[in-house]
Amino acid sequence: MKTDIPKPTLDRLVSLARLLNQLEKDVSVVSSAELEKLTGWSRDTIRRDISLLGANCSTASGYKISELKTTIHKYIGSPDETIKCCIVGLGRMGEALMEYSGFANTAFKLVAGFDSNVNRTETLRSPFPLYTTTQMESVIKNERIEFAILTVPEQSAQAVAEKLVEYGITGIVNFTTAILSLPETIKIENISVLDALQKLAAQYSVLGSKK
Amino acid sequence: MKTDIPKPTLDRLVSLARLLNQLEKDVSVVSSAELEKLTGWSRDTIRRDISLLGANCSTASGYKISELKTTIHKYIGSPDETIKCCIVGLGRMGEALMEYSGFANTAFKLVAGFDSNVNRTETLRSPFPLYTTTQMESVIKNERIEFAILTVPEQSAQAVAEKLVEYGITGIVNFTTAILSLPETIKIENISVLDALQKLAAQYSVLGSKK
Repeated sequence: MKTDIPKPTLDRLVSLARLLNQLEKDVSVVSSAELEKLTGWSRDTIRRDISLLGANCSTASGYKISELKTTIHKYIGSPDETIKCCIVGLGRMGEALMEYSGFANTAFKLVAGFDSNVNRTETLRSPFPLYTTTQMESVIKNERIEFAILTVPEQSAQAVAEKLVEYGITGIVNFTTAILSLPETIKIENISVLDALQKLAAQYSVLGSKK
Repeated sequence: MKTDIPKPTLDRLVSLARLLNQLEKDVSVVSSAELEKLTGWSRDTIRRDISLLGANCSTASGYKISELKTTIHKYIGSPDETIKCCIVGLGRMGEALMEYSGFANTAFKLVAGFDSNVNRTETLRSPFPLYTTTQMESVIKNERIEFAILTVPEQSAQAVAEKLVEYGITGIVNFTTAILSLPETIKIENISVLDALQKLAAQYSVLGSKK
């Protein structure tokens, strides 16, 4: 049953869980019309996504937020488990992510950072240990790190990603512009500011609403 | 006809255009099976997306890359037009994006950066002018800046975004964890490393392939 949820729905559920987390501070119930306004997805899409979870979290005035959140987390994974992550590449982007405070109270724990340049690993201040790339294999294996955030230069991205997979990494958030070619069992999420800008432009181009 | 293309297809076409750009350096034809391998989307999805463009770019051995690229760009917007962009918030993340070299040869041109802290705008080195937030209105209007990359702290994100819209910004790449509530005509693309990690975890959770 679980495997019937398509990837686009899964992606929306992830964002929805985060949204519900924020809403929960102020309200206990939210309607699909309100969710439509906050997410930009149609209320039909939202209703269909939630119906795929097979649980009834709705009242006459909308969805019960805490129940809906619990139900979604059954599918996308619970925030109570801990998934160890590392940052690979400590240039400006890696450094910016290193200081990102959003990981508190999530399932994800940054436990290591890697860079080929020993000057970076020795001088950067970090809330978790930094290592040179030569120590990557032992640290990833010993710490049982599962996911990597890849922020190396584009030209080394593929080679580094292959090493990460060899050492046991099963998921990569790819901040580089390289298109990674890895075994099918490895999950990849690409993050690209250019793609995001192009997606904005595409909507105007297609909808013809841009002057 | 153009408006019939759904957002998920549009998003895939954006990524596909970037992929074709890279492939073009080495080959002139690519099959849907090869694209499946490189993107992770099924070949049926890829074929359906491309068929929605209503043009025939395929040969017996696959799609003609240059033709397919041109066709896609008719829908997502051409790289020849110039869309002016700005970075709002020059903390670590804004600084990292400022130095990002990927904008060359794209439709997007970074023309301004803004920060409320005059120390940042005066001391940071940048390939484009930096201004304090008080100058935001005049610069955005005079330069006719269309899109903004939002990298301010979460607590000021909504207020700053509303100002941007007031000054004429029509699209926002939101790097903050805030969920922006803006008029429907304004396009938003959210970028979140946490959502990306959660999407990786969700795939393992749903597919049950994680130990």
